[in-house]
Amino acid sequence: MKNISIIAFAATVLMCGCKGQPDSPIPEKDLIFAKGQKIENDNFQGTVFLNNLVMADSVNNTAVGSVTFEPGARTKWHVHPAGQIILALAGKGYYQEQGKAKLILKKGDVIKCPPSIPHWHGASTDTGFVQVAITNRENGPTVWLEAVTEREYKSYNNQ
Amino acid sequence: MKNISIIAFAATVLMCGCKGQPDSPIPEKDLIFAKGQKIENDNFQGTVFLNNLVMADSVNNTAVGSVTFEPGARTKWHVHPAGQIILALAGKGYYQEQGKAKLILKKGDVIKCPPSIPHWHGASTDTGFVQVAITNRENGPTVWLEAVTEREYKSYNNQ
Repeated sequence: MKNISIIAFAATVLMCGCKGQPDSPIPEKDLIFAKGQKIENDNFQGTVFLNNLVMADSVNNTAVGSVTFEPGARTKWHVHPAGQIILALAGKGYYQEQGKAKLILKKGDVIKCPPSIPHWHGASTDTGFVQVAITNRENGPTVWLEAVTEREYKSYNNQ
Repeated sequence: MKNISIIAFAATVLMCGCKGQPDSPIPEKDLIFAKGQKIENDNFQGTVFLNNLVMADSVNNTAVGSVTFEPGARTKWHVHPAGQIILALAGKGYYQEQGKAKLILKKGDVIKCPPSIPHWHGASTDTGFVQVAITNRENGPTVWLEAVTEREYKSYNNQ
């Protein structure tokens, strides 16, 4: 019995130790906004939740949403015809524009995506990510492109 | 000496008890964004800090700022020609549109201020307030009006 306990303990240490830390979704108590609904369309990879905070209308054409990415989840490559602003609220995220290096996003970081530039964003491999997306809809809706490959997603992970 | 201690204790209880709790600015560790610079113009009453996160430009005419109000601080009445969106991040705030009751704002609340409607916002009397302001500049800058009176500021405090 003692040997079994030692083996179980060693296995637990190995399982926790190999990745540095286990996958970390953002705890509910750390969220500013409710997570909202799970996104079911195929413009995202992995598990992502969206809370539409403000819908665009004819008077103020700005949409605001809180997006919660579980570890490993991300958008496909896409374009906003009138640009987008991303506010990082919690966790660890990635952001990449076509032809540029992937950036690491953490709480308090701000991105201004230029109009019509292909880009993607999402959570890091081991930690969830919460962002507010502020999207100007005056030139039309988001244009979705191809999926982010594993190679693109995991590039430059030593940052 | 014993009497002095009793009087000091009673005075402390009274001082703490009258207001319910002491003034509460938001602790730095609870901020998502840095507080930024103290606002020195007279469009605000009390102590307010502004961190300009994104400046409006000709391509994306949306400005985003994190505003930290110390207890009792508020804007003057004002108007946004193309509207504004307020995201409440921390603390306890007030928001009022002309002719309507004052609202209490707390973490996670969202306000869409209509264009050209006079309104004001700020911290509550005893707790600071942090908001993100998303302002559409396409119809021109904010128009500042008269100060918020003490009577207006403290109306409906039983909510």
